[in-house]
Amino acid sequence: MLNGERKLNRPLRWAMIGGGRLGQVGYKHRTGALRDNTAYQLVANAFDIDPARGKDFGMNLGVVESRCYPDYKTMISEEAKRTDGIEVVSIATPNGTHYQITKDCLNAGLHVICEKPFVFTVEQAIELKELAIAKGKVIGITYGFSGHPLLLQMRQMVANGDIGDVRMVDLSYAHGFNATDSADKTSDAQKWRVDPKIAGPSFVLGDLSTHTYYMSELILPHMKIKKLLCDRQSFIPSRAPLEDNAYVLMHYDNGAVGRLWASSVNAGSMDSQWIRIVGSKASLVWTDNYPNELRVEVQGEPIQTLSHGMPYLYPEALSDERFGALHTEGLGDSWANIYLKFAVAIDAKNRGDEAALAKMVYPDIDAGIEGVRWIANCVKSADAGSAWVDFE
Amino acid sequence: MLNGERKLNRPLRWAMIGGGRLGQVGYKHRTGALRDNTAYQLVANAFDIDPARGKDFGMNLGVVESRCYPDYKTMISEEAKRTDGIEVVSIATPNGTHYQITKDCLNAGLHVICEKPFVFTVEQAIELKELAIAKGKVIGITYGFSGHPLLLQMRQMVANGDIGDVRMVDLSYAHGFNATDSADKTSDAQKWRVDPKIAGPSFVLGDLSTHTYYMSELILPHMKIKKLLCDRQSFIPSRAPLEDNAYVLMHYDNGAVGRLWASSVNAGSMDSQWIRIVGSKASLVWTDNYPNELRVEVQGEPIQTLSHGMPYLYPEALSDERFGALHTEGLGDSWANIYLKFAVAIDAKNRGDEAALAKMVYPDIDAGIEGVRWIANCVKSADAGSAWVDFE
Amino acid sequence: MLNGERKLNRPLRWAMIGGGRLGQVGYKHRTGALRDNTAYQLVANAFDIDPARGKDFGMNLGVVESRCYPDYKTMISEEAKRTDGIEVVSIATPNGTHYQITKDCLNAGLHVICEKPFVFTVEQAIELKELAIAKGKVIGITYGFSGHPLLLQMRQMVANGDIGDVRMVDLSYAHGFNATDSADKTSDAQKWRVDPKIAGPSFVLGDLSTHTYYMSELILPHMKIKKLLCDRQSFIPSRAPLEDNAYVLMHYDNGAVGRLWASSVNAGSMDSQWIRIVGSKASLVWTDNYPNELRVEVQGEPIQTLSHGMPYLYPEALSDERFGALHTEGLGDSWANIYLKFAVAIDAKNRGDEAALAKMVYPDIDAGIEGVRWIANCVKSADAGSAWVDFE
Amino acid sequence: MLNGERKLNRPLRWAMIGGGRLGQVGYKHRTGALRDNTAYQLVANAFDIDPARGKDFGMNLGVVESRCYPDYKTMISEEAKRTDGIEVVSIATPNGTHYQITKDCLNAGLHVICEKPFVFTVEQAIELKELAIAKGKVIGITYGFSGHPLLLQMRQMVANGDIGDVRMVDLSYAHGFNATDSADKTSDAQKWRVDPKIAGPSFVLGDLSTHTYYMSELILPHMKIKKLLCDRQSFIPSRAPLEDNAYVLMHYDNGAVGRLWASSVNAGSMDSQWIRIVGSKASLVWTDNYPNELRVEVQGEPIQTLSHGMPYLYPEALSDERFGALHTEGLGDSWANIYLKFAVAIDAKNRGDEAALAKMVYPDIDAGIEGVRWIANCVKSADAGSAWVDFE
Repeated sequence: MLNGERKLNRPLRWAMIGGGRLGQVGYKHRTGALRDNTAYQLVANAFDIDPARGKDFGMNLGVVESRCYPDYKTMISEEAKRTDGIEVVSIATPNGTHYQITKDCLNAGLHVICEKPFVFTVEQAIELKELAIAKGKVIGITYGFSGHPLLLQMRQMVANGDIGDVRMVDLSYAHGFNATDSADKTSDAQKWRVDPKIAGPSFVLGDLSTHTYYMSELILPHMKIKKLLCDRQSFIPSRAPLEDNAYVLMHYDNGAVGRLWASSVNAGSMDSQWIRIVGSKASLVWTDNYPNELRVEVQGEPIQTLSHGMPYLYPEALSDERFGALHTEGLGDSWANIYLKFAVAIDAKNRGDEAALAKMVYPDIDAGIEGVRWIANCVKSADAGSAWVDFE
Repeated sequence: MLNGERKLNRPLRWAMIGGGRLGQVGYKHRTGALRDNTAYQLVANAFDIDPARGKDFGMNLGVVESRCYPDYKTMISEEAKRTDGIEVVSIATPNGTHYQITKDCLNAGLHVICEKPFVFTVEQAIELKELAIAKGKVIGITYGFSGHPLLLQMRQMVANGDIGDVRMVDLSYAHGFNATDSADKTSDAQKWRVDPKIAGPSFVLGDLSTHTYYMSELILPHMKIKKLLCDRQSFIPSRAPLEDNAYVLMHYDNGAVGRLWASSVNAGSMDSQWIRIVGSKASLVWTDNYPNELRVEVQGEPIQTLSHGMPYLYPEALSDERFGALHTEGLGDSWANIYLKFAVAIDAKNRGDEAALAKMVYPDIDAGIEGVRWIANCVKSADAGSAWVDFE
Repeated sequence: MLNGERKLNRPLRWAMIGGGRLGQVGYKHRTGALRDNTAYQLVANAFDIDPARGKDFGMNLGVVESRCYPDYKTMISEEAKRTDGIEVVSIATPNGTHYQITKDCLNAGLHVICEKPFVFTVEQAIELKELAIAKGKVIGITYGFSGHPLLLQMRQMVANGDIGDVRMVDLSYAHGFNATDSADKTSDAQKWRVDPKIAGPSFVLGDLSTHTYYMSELILPHMKIKKLLCDRQSFIPSRAPLEDNAYVLMHYDNGAVGRLWASSVNAGSMDSQWIRIVGSKASLVWTDNYPNELRVEVQGEPIQTLSHGMPYLYPEALSDERFGALHTEGLGDSWANIYLKFAVAIDAKNRGDEAALAKMVYPDIDAGIEGVRWIANCVKSADAGSAWVDFE
Repeated sequence: MLNGERKLNRPLRWAMIGGGRLGQVGYKHRTGALRDNTAYQLVANAFDIDPARGKDFGMNLGVVESRCYPDYKTMISEEAKRTDGIEVVSIATPNGTHYQITKDCLNAGLHVICEKPFVFTVEQAIELKELAIAKGKVIGITYGFSGHPLLLQMRQMVANGDIGDVRMVDLSYAHGFNATDSADKTSDAQKWRVDPKIAGPSFVLGDLSTHTYYMSELILPHMKIKKLLCDRQSFIPSRAPLEDNAYVLMHYDNGAVGRLWASSVNAGSMDSQWIRIVGSKASLVWTDNYPNELRVEVQGEPIQTLSHGMPYLYPEALSDERFGALHTEGLGDSWANIYLKFAVAIDAKNRGDEAALAKMVYPDIDAGIEGVRWIANCVKSADAGSAWVDFE
């Protein structure tokens, strides 16, 4: 179990770019990074495109005035002058800015934690990975709910053959909060998501399904998609060419098949992510709406509901536990888990401990690349008339 | 509410072909037909390919010995000689026999109630429809759970615009009882289902998804599929070319899209049918695992759970109610509802009341044809490499 | 599994007293008795205090006009004159009439199936039991949902020690349909329930909790209440002295404790009966709202959900199954199960097979007596200021 | 919504007594207090009865060595010498120590945040309240899950008459983790809980039900218990006289009745707290197992499920929201909410703003007193033979 004791000698000096007062996204990053004060310290920021608001906000969070910067470039250059300057930044800005900011941060010698979807193209993502390697830096991607311990239970159950051979993968991230276009017009957080110049080649595929797709990679590391077909729609026509709904079918290299549903026009739904892994012997079901339970359905036996924090779980699922059985964990706890792994990875990188890094399971740069590749293949298929395409 | 009072002057003289002691299917028919003794009387049968067992069974159910026939042809010819001979037969034999038996029964002047999938080809189905018209007879198809009152509530809510424009249709009938091939080898009820000569061109598409597809037609009578794509698999290789798992994507004529999942290798699942209709304002969710509840998810409002039998439902959903609120209804009650509608339809046909017939909502011959058409289009797509095909 | 094949040489000649067109209760009896046509035949009736309505109703259900009687006394005397007269009657009249009708029927040589609560006092109940013994007749009590197969699974699990020693019994039957007094004034079915002259010494304790109390006896035949305390209220004052809400605490002879909640003012609740049996190792949970599932919670293990009809259940739970796994059963199926047991018991009694009778598990006259005793003890406690009383 | 921005000019200088490495309890306090770094700073501690382990732990959490104290008395006296000494302490030691530590801390001029149950007797609790008043200090009690926003929604719905007059209150906190006595012997965290010298006059009544009782006070501030009856058991005999199971019945001053079940021998249960408030028009249901949903059951209408963070909630329920709809909140978020309120209360007290304090809704010293009073009345009733006692 995690109890906040330090995993690093000292907390990393951390800054945020974006994620200021007006949006919801920044709080997830802060609550993740600052959870126990032993992994990160928020020492600088460029929170907002409105510098005054950003400074006020930063100071309210306890950052000294002089390190509340009007923009990220200033922050990078000013912090570089300090002996106690920032070491790692989190990027919580709109998608279209990720590539340039990440590049600038890496070039400034900073580790990077970036929102999903990482960048617009696989080529960009690979370029940044190579730059990170060259600079000896870590890139982490904030697939926020992927830190829940029960996902590691699922990974371990699959690895141990508990469900037999995987035959089907059923994924969805489908809510209804954009069933109308009202937020497209009024919400700063939503406007750019339907503008291809800023959002990139997709709306819900990137904004939503990359989360769930990463979870499937986490649970099923041995399986790769061979080909897929994506059928996407813009039920609110003004969103075209970006989709607000998408169905994907997948064929995996081991003979398994799968489907994914991404939607923000699934009217009335409060469920968000939902995963079903069907094996030849049993199925696993998890949803982030009730994240503390894992349903295990063994053919011919009573259905089992496993609860987080219980001793019958695999050690991998217990080591990231924070509160224990009976004590519900939420989204914030998952963010804390992945932020802690980012910190441990950064620390290993700083110490040159590549062996430790290689063993870590967390949403790293490859998870970022694969998310972009997923979108690219979906869009390619959709734009080819919802045709099957080889996954590449 | 239904309380068993007669809707016909006298019960119809009814016989069964197939559905004997060894299988589960016959009891559903009998519990449906004989529910209140005011719609049907079981007066004859050809229950079994083993005549002695069939006779013993029939007599145990109260049929006089002389009308427990060794085979359906004998039954038809002998009953034709009686002034009180049978008027309607139910066919609960393997798929491959439906066409000939139905034809023979119609030609003998009998109304027909037949198991799904109705026949192998759309052409056969249309031929039988034309024969039924020529003979002045009714054909009903036993999509058994389609008689649940809450499906009529869904139909009415869609018709009244309660959920706005329909955008998505999500259907599944996916269980895991054939996750291994053990029943393929040992169970008489399963063996023929994976033999194309007897089962026809599909396994789960016909055996399972025709039920759910009909429900979608019931709920969404105004929508037609324009094109679809079917991806089917045989996870148990000996079942090939018949599928034990299938994913279908649909495009409807009103711009809606849909998906369907049919499976008998969904290991461990006790859920069977599941339906989600997404409108521009709200979604409807129903599953036959908890059939007495209907979830209505209005975007931006609390999720609602409607219960069967409650006065706030539409009259259409209350008129088929049997027990009322708090009193769970099950599969048997749905079968009773559709069997009652078959009887009322037969009575109307007998009286020449085509106007009454035209207003009735029940799984009639067209529902049989459309089920076969659904399978044919799915198979055509699957066999074309899981390609999009125009629905025809 | 039950498939309708006869358990008796011929169906019993059956009549109903009460349960006519205007109420809901009669249909449960008819759907129970007539389910398969091999246990009962409805040959006579005195359905209604309005003779014309009763006759019309009876004829609509297929009874010949001459055997649709204006009242039960006429029915008894007229049927006694026939060689094919009735053998068993079901009594679905208000509580206050049960004693006299049962007595008259027994004296006329009829078996009796009676609604709960059976009579007003334990003395009356015992007197009728003795009369039945003297007359060689069976009395069955329609605790309708007690026929669900999963209750027998619970009984068997407790008997086999699967949950360890029973420590706690938590029972409730609490709905909200009488949260206001509107039905007290307008509904014929409700009016008499709050009139002590007709309902007897209790409202919800008798009308509701006797069902659940019988279920607890069915599951826990080895345990007896030693003392109890009942706290009852009349939230609608006009119902006093009859309660519309009651809490009961129980102490059992084996050291277990328990509670029961009966209510018809539990506003908004669609749940009706709910049972939790806590053992030293595990707990069992069942509700008639989702009757086809049994939750088994073993301390320290994943929670299990057992489904009706599955081969892993005890034979006792499978023998009363009608449709099998995946096929939801409802209240009507439970009624059919207990009515079938009444018929088998009557047949055994008629044949003098007391050994067979002794082995049967069904709501017999003792279940009727115990239900009355339960009410009497609760009322005694409540009237003594909600004090502990020895159960006697 | 809460986003971590400061509500105080600067974080309070905070220390913990108890709650060290070996137990689970301390992490809840730390994750609550340190959530956003704008309300508290952990600057000192006396974490452990093993001073070396406590110091190592404290330093691992970032406290400087010199302020990791071997015991609380040393901490109080040493910190008093500093100009930047601690201002508030949290007490997470076994019950039996709360009284003395709280007294010493208050006398040292410190605000106190204390675990429940607060102390052993109402007299002690009142004495400490008076001392706190005299010293101008705040005492907060950590009823940890009481900070969930949906509890405030319930409070507001009741206040606004949305459910009509409250008629019934159904509370439970019943798990099965002590179904055997193994932890009594092996777990340091459990041993003292069944030792009356350290635990006080109760086990589960104090350890569990005070939480749920406080929630009922939070939701129903206008109602007071007039009399109650408590029936308690020690299913593990070595726990006597302390109970591991208890049933309580309550009568309220407004005519409402209630029940509570506290248990740690409810084998297999993963549910912990459960609340049902029944009004004359509707009922509210909430459980901390699925804390982000509130069920509202309006008699005669569809059942509603309200989700945390949705705009249709009352402002009181939204102001304590941290992540917003779709993003599950857990136990840690509730702790953060109550710790933030403690800080705001302390700040108001420090500023002499009694008006602000009077308006605050949080588990203050009165909640501590009432919890002790609740236990005292339950024990008095139980010890009088489970008799009704006037609540005093």
